[in-house]
Amino acid sequence: MSDHVYKLVELTGSSGKSIEDAINNAIAKAGRTLRHLHWFQVVDTRGYIEDNRVKHWQVTVKVGFRVDDEEDDD
Amino acid sequence: MSDHVYKLVELTGSSGKSIEDAINNAIAKAGRTLRHLHWFQVVDTRGYIEDNRVKHWQVTVKVGFRVDDEEDDD
Amino acid sequence: MSDHVYKLVELTGSSGKSIEDAINNAIAKAGRTLRHLHWFQVVDTRGYIEDNRVKHWQVTVKVGFRVDDEEDDD
Amino acid sequence: MSDHVYKLVELTGSSGKSIEDAINNAIAKAGRTLRHLHWFQVVDTRGYIEDNRVKHWQVTVKVGFRVDDEEDDD
Amino acid sequence: MSDHVYKLVELTGSSGKSIEDAINNAIAKAGRTLRHLHWFQVVDTRGYIEDNRVKHWQVTVKVGFRVDDEEDDD
Amino acid sequence: MSDHVYKLVELTGSSGKSIEDAINNAIAKAGRTLRHLHWFQVVDTRGYIEDNRVKHWQVTVKVGFRVDDEEDDD
Amino acid sequence: MSDHVYKLVELTGSSGKSIEDAINNAIAKAGRTLRHLHWFQVVDTRGYIEDNRVKHWQVTVKVGFRVDDEEDDD
Amino acid sequence: MSDHVYKLVELTGSSGKSIEDAINNAIAKAGRTLRHLHWFQVVDTRGYIEDNRVKHWQVTVKVGFRVDDEEDDD
Amino acid sequence: MSDHVYKLVELTGSSGKSIEDAINNAIAKAGRTLRHLHWFQVVDTRGYIEDNRVKHWQVTVKVGFRVDDEEDDD
Amino acid sequence: MSDHVYKLVELTGSSGKSIEDAINNAIAKAGRTLRHLHWFQVVDTRGYIEDNRVKHWQVTVKVGFRVDDEEDDD
Amino acid sequence: MSDHVYKLVELTGSSGKSIEDAINNAIAKAGRTLRHLHWFQVVDTRGYIEDNRVKHWQVTVKVGFRVDDEEDDD
Amino acid sequence: MSDHVYKLVELTGSSGKSIEDAINNAIAKAGRTLRHLHWFQVVDTRGYIEDNRVKHWQVTVKVGFRVDDEEDDD
Repeated sequence: MSDHVYKLVELTGSSGKSIEDAINNAIAKAGRTLRHLHWFQVVDTRGYIEDNRVKHWQVTVKVGFRVDDEEDDD
Repeated sequence: MSDHVYKLVELTGSSGKSIEDAINNAIAKAGRTLRHLHWFQVVDTRGYIEDNRVKHWQVTVKVGFRVDDEEDDD
Repeated sequence: MSDHVYKLVELTGSSGKSIEDAINNAIAKAGRTLRHLHWFQVVDTRGYIEDNRVKHWQVTVKVGFRVDDEEDDD
Repeated sequence: MSDHVYKLVELTGSSGKSIEDAINNAIAKAGRTLRHLHWFQVVDTRGYIEDNRVKHWQVTVKVGFRVDDEEDDD
Repeated sequence: MSDHVYKLVELTGSSGKSIEDAINNAIAKAGRTLRHLHWFQVVDTRGYIEDNRVKHWQVTVKVGFRVDDEEDDD
Repeated sequence: MSDHVYKLVELTGSSGKSIEDAINNAIAKAGRTLRHLHWFQVVDTRGYIEDNRVKHWQVTVKVGFRVDDEEDDD
Repeated sequence: MSDHVYKLVELTGSSGKSIEDAINNAIAKAGRTLRHLHWFQVVDTRGYIEDNRVKHWQVTVKVGFRVDDEEDDD
Repeated sequence: MSDHVYKLVELTGSSGKSIEDAINNAIAKAGRTLRHLHWFQVVDTRGYIEDNRVKHWQVTVKVGFRVDDEEDDD
Repeated sequence: MSDHVYKLVELTGSSGKSIEDAINNAIAKAGRTLRHLHWFQVVDTRGYIEDNRVKHWQVTVKVGFRVDDEEDDD
Repeated sequence: MSDHVYKLVELTGSSGKSIEDAINNAIAKAGRTLRHLHWFQVVDTRGYIEDNRVKHWQVTVKVGFRVDDEEDDD
Repeated sequence: MSDHVYKLVELTGSSGKSIEDAINNAIAKAGRTLRHLHWFQVVDTRGYIEDNRVKHWQVTVKVGFRVDDEEDDD
Repeated sequence: MSDHVYKLVELTGSSGKSIEDAINNAIAKAGRTLRHLHWFQVVDTRGYIEDNRVKHWQVTVKVGFRVDDEEDDD
């Protein structure tokens, strides 16, 4: 059956380096417990400041993954 | 105790037929692993095109279900 | 490694008393199955009416919790 | 004078059949007491679930109607 | 026929005491002229300040009520 | 009792002259059937084009008016 | 080079039958002058009313198509 | 066939005089290359300041025009 | 001259007690350095969690105050 | 160094005449205490009503100004 | 005449490297057929995932370009 | 007293290098006149184009800083 269903989870990844790195951290973490990760979408970009510089980039993403019958999520 | 708590999951269902069918596909899939589904809410309506016609309707919905104590989710 | 990842779940708590109480109900329920709850954010405030008074306050919140490696969510 | 004024009312129609039917139910009901209905606009699409299928489609629309001097609304 | 239609009216209630009280004031006032009030939804929370304290909480809500055939609204 | 309740109605006024004039047309029309109009808020600004010029300015506003007990709104 | 660029055009399709049909009308029209249509996204759902029924469904979509070098878009 | 399709283009018009004039400038310019302009919708109102007064009003509008088969746009 | 100008500042107040209290804390603090505070508007409601209960309510408000010529802000 | 930093302040200007005049009033007031005003952006258009006409146009704008090192704001 | 008109096109650029690179790809492509590109604005940041890492950054931007009389855009 | 109050200022930083660099420029500038900078949040990402490449990244952020009694802001 070609009618797929995807679930979206919302994650906040952080990184001391860059926005791209914070997103990859969130996805890598999600990939340890979820299979079939397909796409993400940035929801919010924030961060913490220390000594007048960005100390932690914090990016909230929605990650979509395909839900298979044999290995259902949740 | 009448103070219920509901959890919302975000799903994208797809269908070759219609918007309504894509929503029902998402709900049917959610119903295999979650109990007490109560309501849904459309978040986004998209789709893929092939030969200048909609090939797949893709509808993202939030589905709310009651969280019971004895059979907690997550 | 200081690059944490947080997951956000969306919950609707209800209460007959107040908006604050509905939020605490949602968080208390989440705390039974999830660890490391850090923050919440109000998404929507609604309610049901009976005899021309608010009978149930229903507040939808996003709750963020830290995802640890040894005890992964989902 | 060609400067018309329109009023918008917000309605939620429901239907067991389809999104389109729920909208038409709302408009038909509005048409029993209001004249000169001109256009509508979808504000929200939701529904209730029973046995893992959509039981009621609930569509909230804004309906615009022309306000005439001789037969004022409200 | 189980296909109901609801109308939403938008009201701003005010109170010197609390957000919850301002909402209940709006609903109580609506209940004097409208029947079948079912639910509300907070749209905006504001207020006026006097002597560096909140003097009036002003909460705008949408209130939904069922429209019956025999006693139509508007 | 100083706890007032206001109702908001949504109107679209049109004018061949200006945005300000379209708003005043909507308010003047509302003032024929409603008392105690207090404030408005622009929701949407549109218009129709003829011969590559704006023919009608169409401005949608929410108008708030105080609801008194003796002369209740609908 | 696998780094594609897509252009999005915004179209309003109308139909007397259904929301799905209005979207397909918009896509079919776009397909006459544009190649490589990939996906669409619903932006707004409106319609005109006649005799208290929806006469025309009007759906505004964004349609994305791949821009190729040899056959550049406008 | 009564099922029309409209395309929307987004333009920013500027004027030293007024908001209305900036919109008409954008529409007049669009009218030189596009036929069948029907309606517009204001998306954003900005401007540049010189000597503490508005020097240029800049209004971004979406302009809709009917797409005919014999004289297709794009 | 009756044409007043108001400035809006955005503040986040926190409180261990309630949403209302967090707003009053923000306003009281603003009142120590700014005069003529008139109104506020809630922008965001969040909070921190400890031991599965709300530890700090954090409410972000915009506060508007009148700017007088003799005692200009900023 | 060509990497400038701008600060945005949010102001509500009012006028008995027009929307454009209310914006210019806000900018003129800001210009008495701030230098290097560059651009503005309309956030909200409201007003008060008296005798069924607009008495005061109230337009909220964000005004951006360049922050120089020698004459820092705040 | 100093009253310029700008057109905005919406593009999605992709890149395997970074968000900045995806935006530059979209602008470079637009620059092959359009002249007088002035500014862009990020609308949406998404991407595809492969092997639990971001494979393609996909950034949707609006690009504004000045419309000249002699060389009019479509 | 543990009930802190934070003020948010909105800044636009620019950089020829990257989005992250534009944000750090804005924060560094704010840090010269404000103490206790805690967090930021991205509001808007834009830029200027020259020779079909991004010349200046312009990122608007809200920066939050704690307001202390002895050294009040504004």
